[in-house]
Amino acid sequence: MTTLVLVSHPELADSSTQQFLKASLPKTDVVWEHIESQSTIDIEKEQHQLRAADRIILQFPLYWYTAPAGLKQWEDTVLTRNFVYGDRRYPLAGKELGLVVSTGMPATAFQRGGTEGFSLDALLTPFAALAQRARMVWLPTLAIPQFGYLEEPEKLRLVTDYQRYLTQTYPDSLANRQVWFAEQLAKQIAQLPADQRVTGRMLADQFDQRRTAISDLQGTLAMIKEQEDD
Amino acid sequence: MTTLVLVSHPELADSSTQQFLKASLPKTDVVWEHIESQSTIDIEKEQHQLRAADRIILQFPLYWYTAPAGLKQWEDTVLTRNFVYGDRRYPLAGKELGLVVSTGMPATAFQRGGTEGFSLDALLTPFAALAQRARMVWLPTLAIPQFGYLEEPEKLRLVTDYQRYLTQTYPDSLANRQVWFAEQLAKQIAQLPADQRVTGRMLADQFDQRRTAISDLQGTLAMIKEQEDD
Repeated sequence: MTTLVLVSHPELADSSTQQFLKASLPKTDVVWEHIESQSTIDIEKEQHQLRAADRIILQFPLYWYTAPAGLKQWEDTVLTRNFVYGDRRYPLAGKELGLVVSTGMPATAFQRGGTEGFSLDALLTPFAALAQRARMVWLPTLAIPQFGYLEEPEKLRLVTDYQRYLTQTYPDSLANRQVWFAEQLAKQIAQLPADQRVTGRMLADQFDQRRTAISDLQGTLAMIKEQEDD
Repeated sequence: MTTLVLVSHPELADSSTQQFLKASLPKTDVVWEHIESQSTIDIEKEQHQLRAADRIILQFPLYWYTAPAGLKQWEDTVLTRNFVYGDRRYPLAGKELGLVVSTGMPATAFQRGGTEGFSLDALLTPFAALAQRARMVWLPTLAIPQFGYLEEPEKLRLVTDYQRYLTQTYPDSLANRQVWFAEQLAKQIAQLPADQRVTGRMLADQFDQRRTAISDLQGTLAMIKEQEDD
């Protein structure tokens, strides 16, 4: 799977959130692009990148309750009517569209009665409408509220959440998570020096045993439910 | 009352909708500005204009379910945090914010189950959030769907609706409409050549008589309701 990450931020170098996310990118299968860094938008290249991706991520800070002007300029330029849905061809159909949105206010502000009064989902409606128009699959938004206040363990957790958001199979089910973590573990072990690989494999074995245990428990649960329904 | 109309359209001269609206502008008390015509955004001037206005209208075609990039650039530049709500001063508080939005799809497309799937109100949530943050009064949006298909009588009606949207006292009640139409009539009569003014005054008298008749009917209705409640 190829993921295209389109970042919009007028001053990327000054954004600790965006620098952190850039450093957290998965090593493979990800194309990363900063929209405002390009002096002109190359429509052909952008459309080609979109066609080549399986998952498209728009990543930005919330400015006046939506994306910065740079991303809108990109949309207005690259997403020509003819490209997205003209002639009844839909080149983006079936691809996944996800948003990674950082906010200065806490998550609780974005609800009725909260300081902002509207949910992030409501504010991002235009993107959901775009996904629908292009016949794309809409991913639940990854919100990053108040990055500056995160403690070290929360930041580590964010690295994993972000990498999963970019590369884990949708939807975010237990089964899909298990597969993702198993793959990551296998990759890490492959990169270990020879003398540490045994320990690595022991870890992987333990992980597999737990997966089997969970699977057994799910089987048992299903049996109990069936008996209840009798 | 002063109304500031900020128009965003990347190719204003080619837009028959925007040209029509420009020709329909009320003659007085309206400041009109085309955002994309300015080579650079003069923050001081823009903020001054906003402070001086009682009603602020953002007028644009719906591009990818929100305003064109030009308006977002204006927002990101002019609406500095400090200007809108910094230091707990709110220079825009109490002013009215309204949107005039033209769409290529018919009104019925903007609902659940419609072609677009989302209401115009839902799509414009970021602007409602901005109004709330700035402590402004949110006006119901004036939507102009499929201007190109309007017949002549519908266009004439649009002129009135548009002028009322820009200058009539909010909310759009019967009483406020009557006052607005009476004022327009008075203005028109004042501009008539002397020999036609008698006819003009007769029209105004007739209008006043109907207002009085409606007022009497409302009084009667209120009495009936009171008796019903006994």
